[in-house]
Amino acid sequence: MSTNTQLIQEKLAQVTAILDEFNIDLWLTFVRETSMQPDPALELIAGVDVTWQSAFLLSRSGQHTAIVGHFDAANVLDLGAYQVIGYHEGLRQPLLEALTAYQPATIAINYSESDVAADGLSHGMYLALCDHLQATPFAGRLVSAEKIIAALRGRKSKTEIERVRQAVLTTEKLFDAVEQFAKPGMTQRQIADFVRGRVDEMGLGYAWPKPFNPIVTCGPHSAVGHAAPGDVVLAKGHTLHLDLGIKQDDYCSDLQRMWYVLNDGESEAPADVQRAFDVVYGAIRAGERHLQPGMPGWQVDAVAREFIVDNGYPEYMHAFGHLLGRSAHDGATVLGPRWERYKGICDLLVEVGNIFTLELHVVVPNRGIMSLEEDVVVTENGIVYLSAPQKELRYIRP
Amino acid sequence: MSTNTQLIQEKLAQVTAILDEFNIDLWLTFVRETSMQPDPALELIAGVDVTWQSAFLLSRSGQHTAIVGHFDAANVLDLGAYQVIGYHEGLRQPLLEALTAYQPATIAINYSESDVAADGLSHGMYLALCDHLQATPFAGRLVSAEKIIAALRGRKSKTEIERVRQAVLTTEKLFDAVEQFAKPGMTQRQIADFVRGRVDEMGLGYAWPKPFNPIVTCGPHSAVGHAAPGDVVLAKGHTLHLDLGIKQDDYCSDLQRMWYVLNDGESEAPADVQRAFDVVYGAIRAGERHLQPGMPGWQVDAVAREFIVDNGYPEYMHAFGHLLGRSAHDGATVLGPRWERYKGICDLLVEVGNIFTLELHVVVPNRGIMSLEEDVVVTENGIVYLSAPQKELRYIRP
Repeated sequence: MSTNTQLIQEKLAQVTAILDEFNIDLWLTFVRETSMQPDPALELIAGVDVTWQSAFLLSRSGQHTAIVGHFDAANVLDLGAYQVIGYHEGLRQPLLEALTAYQPATIAINYSESDVAADGLSHGMYLALCDHLQATPFAGRLVSAEKIIAALRGRKSKTEIERVRQAVLTTEKLFDAVEQFAKPGMTQRQIADFVRGRVDEMGLGYAWPKPFNPIVTCGPHSAVGHAAPGDVVLAKGHTLHLDLGIKQDDYCSDLQRMWYVLNDGESEAPADVQRAFDVVYGAIRAGERHLQPGMPGWQVDAVAREFIVDNGYPEYMHAFGHLLGRSAHDGATVLGPRWERYKGICDLLVEVGNIFTLELHVVVPNRGIMSLEEDVVVTENGIVYLSAPQKELRYIRP
Repeated sequence: MSTNTQLIQEKLAQVTAILDEFNIDLWLTFVRETSMQPDPALELIAGVDVTWQSAFLLSRSGQHTAIVGHFDAANVLDLGAYQVIGYHEGLRQPLLEALTAYQPATIAINYSESDVAADGLSHGMYLALCDHLQATPFAGRLVSAEKIIAALRGRKSKTEIERVRQAVLTTEKLFDAVEQFAKPGMTQRQIADFVRGRVDEMGLGYAWPKPFNPIVTCGPHSAVGHAAPGDVVLAKGHTLHLDLGIKQDDYCSDLQRMWYVLNDGESEAPADVQRAFDVVYGAIRAGERHLQPGMPGWQVDAVAREFIVDNGYPEYMHAFGHLLGRSAHDGATVLGPRWERYKGICDLLVEVGNIFTLELHVVVPNRGIMSLEEDVVVTENGIVYLSAPQKELRYIRP
């Protein structure tokens, strides 16, 4: 069995349990031309692209049916997980036959106002589905699949955890290479281009778009946030910060690492820089201890946030962590404050199998940003680091 | 001005004319978290990713407004094409203010049952939009933007044509490299891996998913269609066929090339192979002459199809051509037969600026497939080839 097939089967086993947990009879993923219009749920349950209108029906009984264009049938059959109906004329009749056989009291479909990962059904496809179901009893049984998808995406299987671990390892090697490469006088762009060259050479992907990946921040004049690397020059006495996420075997890393560029005569960072590192590191460790199954996201964030503020720095204006997996922002649950813009998603509970980033920053006046980010998985007995956490400030030596 | 900015400005100039042509006052693209849930229309009008709920309002007057999360504002402002409102709290109020200022009688939004490229609005986002517009006069003014998007995506601008041309050139160089590399005894997979190695090395993307790109068909035992390259071995006396599409600077190529593997003592292909090549080549040329602005797609297909049948081969069970651009299947219009599964899209008319593939195949018994594909752009005075059309059978020499 290929690891992709194994992965799909792991996730489908989870689906059966989740449908039972939420008392849903049938989950319907309804898609077409998925290379142009991907549904984030499809990659979890099939990992193939389809062309014509296609329906993936996953039932609480553990039986699954896929209705796809005939030329896509072989690829779905290869998964060994679906009864596959490859149609020639149109999907309506086999869809109604399958629904009649399953007789579901509820049919969950992929839309959500609050969770983008659970909102893969386009409005045009929703209308097409309503056309297909018109004048059948199934038309009145549609509900949102958002809870199903949040659980399925958030609870990582064994293979998924292993893949994130491998992506993290590759990313750490890239940071080591940067440390050899970077010298004072180089621009952010030169450093970013070096990393991208390595990533491309290895045939890897990016966890977020390449123009902003890696983010390279150096010194006090760099913009903080979603900015593309520019012409700011790395200088002695300044910090160097990279935020890099790659995609390897369809799974992402998302890590931030910190260096200080030694000034002439210095053998270590000055006290202001070292203290900022210690506080950021300490805040991540403080938050980490509260990252436990059943804890609402906002409580984890609050601990790290309080640590920063207690140490005299202004609080960071973002969340302490987000889910990580097939995407850098991989689903609903956020470890963040209960601000309006994080409405609802920080009240969600941490679950076993969640992979979270832990990240925050402070600014060191005249030196630059100090920002760390680690990747961890939640287990029944506390968290396990997927990254080798940065415990010491690293150095660029001129 | 960067070429990306120039490209967006070219497309926005087209938008103004198209809104006027279809008598639509305002076109609203409503998106969020576009790196996970891309709207195919957004890349045409902005080419940036946004995170929170965002609204791009394009008006018939040529004035455009973008309402985005504050940290995405700078990237949109850089396009030099939008009045940008970066919000902190929520999108509803600035959206309603902008609509009130524009006073549109019709608001086109991105949904379509028939055209995936015009169906980027998710159902959850549609519901969110309805919430925002509730109890305002705008709620009753929503219409589908499918005609706008089909015209905008189909009519390629100068920069778009140039980018496809460059992707085609790169692809042709890859075919030349394959000709040097391929030897009898190699498997389909070895040949595909060679091509992918080069594509990855150059940091390029794929026009369709990598497992099926390139498609490598050799000899009579290869599956035809959407199959991944496998263990079938290239043998003397058989044909070798590649279907390869790359993505370079966001634009795609999609080309098929043919080789014959010379048998011991042969200096050219046997008559059955040569005749198949001549007929496929002739059919493309016959169809090409009818690819003119105002012609419905099915009429172009019919000419090529008739040529094949007149020459004693069974007709191909696919369309003669499709649009090409940011995607391999880049929008609605298809040069194909009026079969049920191509419902409506083959009645659409060829337009100036359309880039089409021209492709078809026959099977040579005991030899393999014979399939060619070229990329051409429609101008007011007939078509222009973006590829150097394959006029002669190429050879693999043992």
